[in-house]
Amino acid sequence: MIDLRSDTVTKPDDRMRDAAYAADVGDAVYGEDPTVNELEERAADVVGTEAALYVPSGTMGNQIAARVHTERGQELLTDEKSHIVKYELGGAADLSGLQVRMVDADRGIPTPEQIANGIVQESLHRPGTGLAWLENTHNARGGLAIEPEKIDAAAKAAHERDVPVHLDGARMFNAATALDVPVTELTEPVDSVMFCLSKGLGAPIGSMLAGSEDFVEKACRVRKLFGGGLRQAGIIAAPGLEALGNVDNLERDHEHAQRLADGLEAVDGFDVQPPETNIVLADISGTGLETDAVLDRLREKDVLATQFGPSTVRFCTHWNVSSDDVETVLERIETAV
Amino acid sequence: MIDLRSDTVTKPDDRMRDAAYAADVGDAVYGEDPTVNELEERAADVVGTEAALYVPSGTMGNQIAARVHTERGQELLTDEKSHIVKYELGGAADLSGLQVRMVDADRGIPTPEQIANGIVQESLHRPGTGLAWLENTHNARGGLAIEPEKIDAAAKAAHERDVPVHLDGARMFNAATALDVPVTELTEPVDSVMFCLSKGLGAPIGSMLAGSEDFVEKACRVRKLFGGGLRQAGIIAAPGLEALGNVDNLERDHEHAQRLADGLEAVDGFDVQPPETNIVLADISGTGLETDAVLDRLREKDVLATQFGPSTVRFCTHWNVSSDDVETVLERIETAV
Amino acid sequence: MIDLRSDTVTKPDDRMRDAAYAADVGDAVYGEDPTVNELEERAADVVGTEAALYVPSGTMGNQIAARVHTERGQELLTDEKSHIVKYELGGAADLSGLQVRMVDADRGIPTPEQIANGIVQESLHRPGTGLAWLENTHNARGGLAIEPEKIDAAAKAAHERDVPVHLDGARMFNAATALDVPVTELTEPVDSVMFCLSKGLGAPIGSMLAGSEDFVEKACRVRKLFGGGLRQAGIIAAPGLEALGNVDNLERDHEHAQRLADGLEAVDGFDVQPPETNIVLADISGTGLETDAVLDRLREKDVLATQFGPSTVRFCTHWNVSSDDVETVLERIETAV
Amino acid sequence: MIDLRSDTVTKPDDRMRDAAYAADVGDAVYGEDPTVNELEERAADVVGTEAALYVPSGTMGNQIAARVHTERGQELLTDEKSHIVKYELGGAADLSGLQVRMVDADRGIPTPEQIANGIVQESLHRPGTGLAWLENTHNARGGLAIEPEKIDAAAKAAHERDVPVHLDGARMFNAATALDVPVTELTEPVDSVMFCLSKGLGAPIGSMLAGSEDFVEKACRVRKLFGGGLRQAGIIAAPGLEALGNVDNLERDHEHAQRLADGLEAVDGFDVQPPETNIVLADISGTGLETDAVLDRLREKDVLATQFGPSTVRFCTHWNVSSDDVETVLERIETAV
Repeated sequence: MIDLRSDTVTKPDDRMRDAAYAADVGDAVYGEDPTVNELEERAADVVGTEAALYVPSGTMGNQIAARVHTERGQELLTDEKSHIVKYELGGAADLSGLQVRMVDADRGIPTPEQIANGIVQESLHRPGTGLAWLENTHNARGGLAIEPEKIDAAAKAAHERDVPVHLDGARMFNAATALDVPVTELTEPVDSVMFCLSKGLGAPIGSMLAGSEDFVEKACRVRKLFGGGLRQAGIIAAPGLEALGNVDNLERDHEHAQRLADGLEAVDGFDVQPPETNIVLADISGTGLETDAVLDRLREKDVLATQFGPSTVRFCTHWNVSSDDVETVLERIETAV
Repeated sequence: MIDLRSDTVTKPDDRMRDAAYAADVGDAVYGEDPTVNELEERAADVVGTEAALYVPSGTMGNQIAARVHTERGQELLTDEKSHIVKYELGGAADLSGLQVRMVDADRGIPTPEQIANGIVQESLHRPGTGLAWLENTHNARGGLAIEPEKIDAAAKAAHERDVPVHLDGARMFNAATALDVPVTELTEPVDSVMFCLSKGLGAPIGSMLAGSEDFVEKACRVRKLFGGGLRQAGIIAAPGLEALGNVDNLERDHEHAQRLADGLEAVDGFDVQPPETNIVLADISGTGLETDAVLDRLREKDVLATQFGPSTVRFCTHWNVSSDDVETVLERIETAV
Repeated sequence: MIDLRSDTVTKPDDRMRDAAYAADVGDAVYGEDPTVNELEERAADVVGTEAALYVPSGTMGNQIAARVHTERGQELLTDEKSHIVKYELGGAADLSGLQVRMVDADRGIPTPEQIANGIVQESLHRPGTGLAWLENTHNARGGLAIEPEKIDAAAKAAHERDVPVHLDGARMFNAATALDVPVTELTEPVDSVMFCLSKGLGAPIGSMLAGSEDFVEKACRVRKLFGGGLRQAGIIAAPGLEALGNVDNLERDHEHAQRLADGLEAVDGFDVQPPETNIVLADISGTGLETDAVLDRLREKDVLATQFGPSTVRFCTHWNVSSDDVETVLERIETAV
Repeated sequence: MIDLRSDTVTKPDDRMRDAAYAADVGDAVYGEDPTVNELEERAADVVGTEAALYVPSGTMGNQIAARVHTERGQELLTDEKSHIVKYELGGAADLSGLQVRMVDADRGIPTPEQIANGIVQESLHRPGTGLAWLENTHNARGGLAIEPEKIDAAAKAAHERDVPVHLDGARMFNAATALDVPVTELTEPVDSVMFCLSKGLGAPIGSMLAGSEDFVEKACRVRKLFGGGLRQAGIIAAPGLEALGNVDNLERDHEHAQRLADGLEAVDGFDVQPPETNIVLADISGTGLETDAVLDRLREKDVLATQFGPSTVRFCTHWNVSSDDVETVLERIETAV
């Protein structure tokens, strides 16, 4: 079975398992887990913030950020296809009472003009915009790598209006790799950033939420409220530390995605969006088949992919997918469709 | 002073004051106020629903509807300029935990395609769309009168996907008057409707929320939660009953708006959107003046209007504005600008 | 029919109706209703605060206060039988996310020791107590008039721990009358107070929320969020102003309650709690009858009262109940039971 | 350093680390982690429910249960010292809008009478009680082991009134051990139960939430909302499976607690509550020392304990505390105080 549904399916390797085995642990709720503490310091260094917090999932990191930056009733401004809009069960509204203002942003990154127009000033009738929200790479639009200048311009437009900016950087290292820039160029313009140790970096569990010391202190409290306070978390923070060393693998994943896209484009009826990172979106309406049917046929051939819109299939490369796997997938798809 | 800021500024006339004076009252929280009961029955008749509920304001009526139709985390689908988005302090998210999905709808009425695309199916990641939300007339887009076919088409598109529809009909009678259709043609396609007795109909206070008996029973409870349970409400329900007789006045208000628009169009630098009901929007950027400055100059001449966007001024005609007032306003504006 | 269910059933008299008829009105959402403005100034004077806000109901006034003083997750400390706990649909938790800490307070007024013990300090695990909540008169415990010293002692205990205090003074004037003290002695120790113009004072609709200017400014915004922003509210504020002149009537209501209590005590099987204001609680378990049955028999004799606990009946005197009515009620009860 | 602050400080042993190392994993959000699936089945078996869900923390398990069983505004009935009241940041109100009704329950277990009196029927004014909440062992009252009959009686009283019952069984195995009953006798009467794999059982991370299939399906969704959806969670579920085999260790922890209590009782000024499980509470007011000072002196002697109320110190035995450790602690305390 070759699993291309998501890079969330990556399994930890021996190095990570060794790290889990050997982890020095303590009670992280008391702030006494040395491995967690080391990971939080390393993560803050990596993104260039004062502090960072270990959280069980990217969704929790995002939801904590949404709450810490805002007050109830305020607006959160973001692209209409961002993860927080599509895949987090309406948490920004449900848990934090935020009115989400969605814009249809080209490549998922609002322009300065969209930010300027989308920000609402506080008035008798309106609590105003509390947070601008960016995502990089942009998952639902096809793993797009958003350039530092775009991030910077959007953030500037928000900051000029006294609105803080959060970056959902779940796959931020994929963006930095694809653009060949230091990750700090992507994070420097924003006030807080969440990135995942799982997904492309391969850790079994966990994400980091980084920002100022004050932000992280408040975030720590909200983490507890949401039930994200873990005890001997070093046992999963240790593989997380290993995962930070896996950034170099991402280039290979991107090459695999490119190879996969080239091969899929040759399949009759497949229309492939040129991949920028490790995500390949193919519109399969040209095959005359239902998306479900295509996925079923692939599954019969031991290939897994995901539906991503009415006639779109997503293929995701990751560190458990080899060059050979990619070739095998392409062969199987040709015979399947 | 001629006040064209809003039709909310209308003052009750002697007939309404007489009605308030003479009202037969009781404890409406116990359901024992005969005047309130009469008004609720009359309102249900007017819009063709099983039942109706008297509420202190249009905002409360809307917020109750948003809550009764939905569950936390669900989406509410509406035009990005609807009243609930712009003027209700984020209440749908704050009070009911709803993720508001805003579409940029031509004339403020989402097309069936926009409804179909905007409705989200429930999944592991998404609680789905709980309510589609229409507004008629559409205030922020200039008092546009939305035709029954458009309402019907939007509602059908929602109902086909098992999504109920609420109509914010704060100025619904203006729409029916402008379109020369029975108001029930506008309300028949939807599951619940709110309309105001204040505004164009001239009552000092109060709005009606109408729907099925089950809906109104639940709404009654939420009204109490929000603090909208009044006691001897007959004293304001009585002018409300009178207000229901004021629908015929609206045609005159619309003629005044048309006359005002024609006159304003002749003012140098004014670009006027052709009015459909009692609201006139004028883009004053051609004057080279700041909007504030224009409003100040009008105020100095005893004319009040409202800013409505960066370079837009709103003028609203209503039953306390006579034909002479309109002419006076036009004269004063010409000298003022 | 003699209605002793509640003092909420009082009907406005001619003076109030005249006031409604003649009220000078404006758009109160814009702060331009002269009658509302006058009432808010008068109310602030009456309770000795910087400012006051007109709200449609006591419940809304209370819920606004709960929200303005606190942050989500904080605790609200109060007697377990206070109105906000028993009769407001869980609004403090539902609308404002507050954990309500209920103490079993003798006479409904927590002692300084109960306040001290009940206040929770903020910590890693607890958001702390955000508000202490008092009620006077205490409705559910039988219209008890809480003395200024008790209010003061409770408030001091809270203030020493930096916790603000709200007074639900729905029937505050009954307490001042019974205790023969200026009402400001009851309100001086607290940070905000809500009192009703309806109930004993006889206005058809409306309550006042009073406090500092900063508090009232925030309250005004929350009032809008909850849908309590009214337009030409002068039409009900005018009877409200008249109601402020009705304080002197309360003594008569209390005498009626005392006469009623004396008479009821003589009824076989009735055990009456000595009334302190206008509320009489009678335990009717000694009659061997179900409470429902007793209420039904009274209703057959055109007397209305309310169930108030498993075997308790509440009788409430008010300005629509005359001395003769009281005698009539006593005669009918004797024959009914 | 001998750490008696809490049994949350327990560190995983080699067996658990081996299990983490060797864990067969998959994407648990897709339901494909075989180790998580095995753990969930085992956990359901252990407590005798249809299904169970792995959650990152006991707090998350509790908060999910509070939300799944209830509707906003309803009441949650529990002892005033239960964990959800004291240590979860007001989450029941903040995240789920519940009004928490706290009773002062002897030994932390409400009597059937307290349940009967504390349950509120739904009415026009009250949303009613949605959930009764029990805790076993009862942490804040000193690790009390609540007998099956008491659990059963409380649950029956709730069920007779159609109110479901949740058991916070974070230390449920300690109770079963102390009472020498099968754990299912403690869980059979309730509708859902949360228990911790960390704490006394020694797993580094994780708790289980168990109930009917329908309950667990809804819980899975809320877990995602709260950010508790983990990916390759097998790596921590595997030590969790090992932890289920550690129940036999608890008896030793209890013997240590007893020995510790006996020794502490002999210390001048210590007044010790007889321990029932692994928690020892000592009132140290007799020493004339501040609690802080006592804790500081212990820390200087490499002994850690926790403040638990104004003059109370909590000592907690667990599997990283040996018999020798207990003796050492007693020696050090004697010299320290």
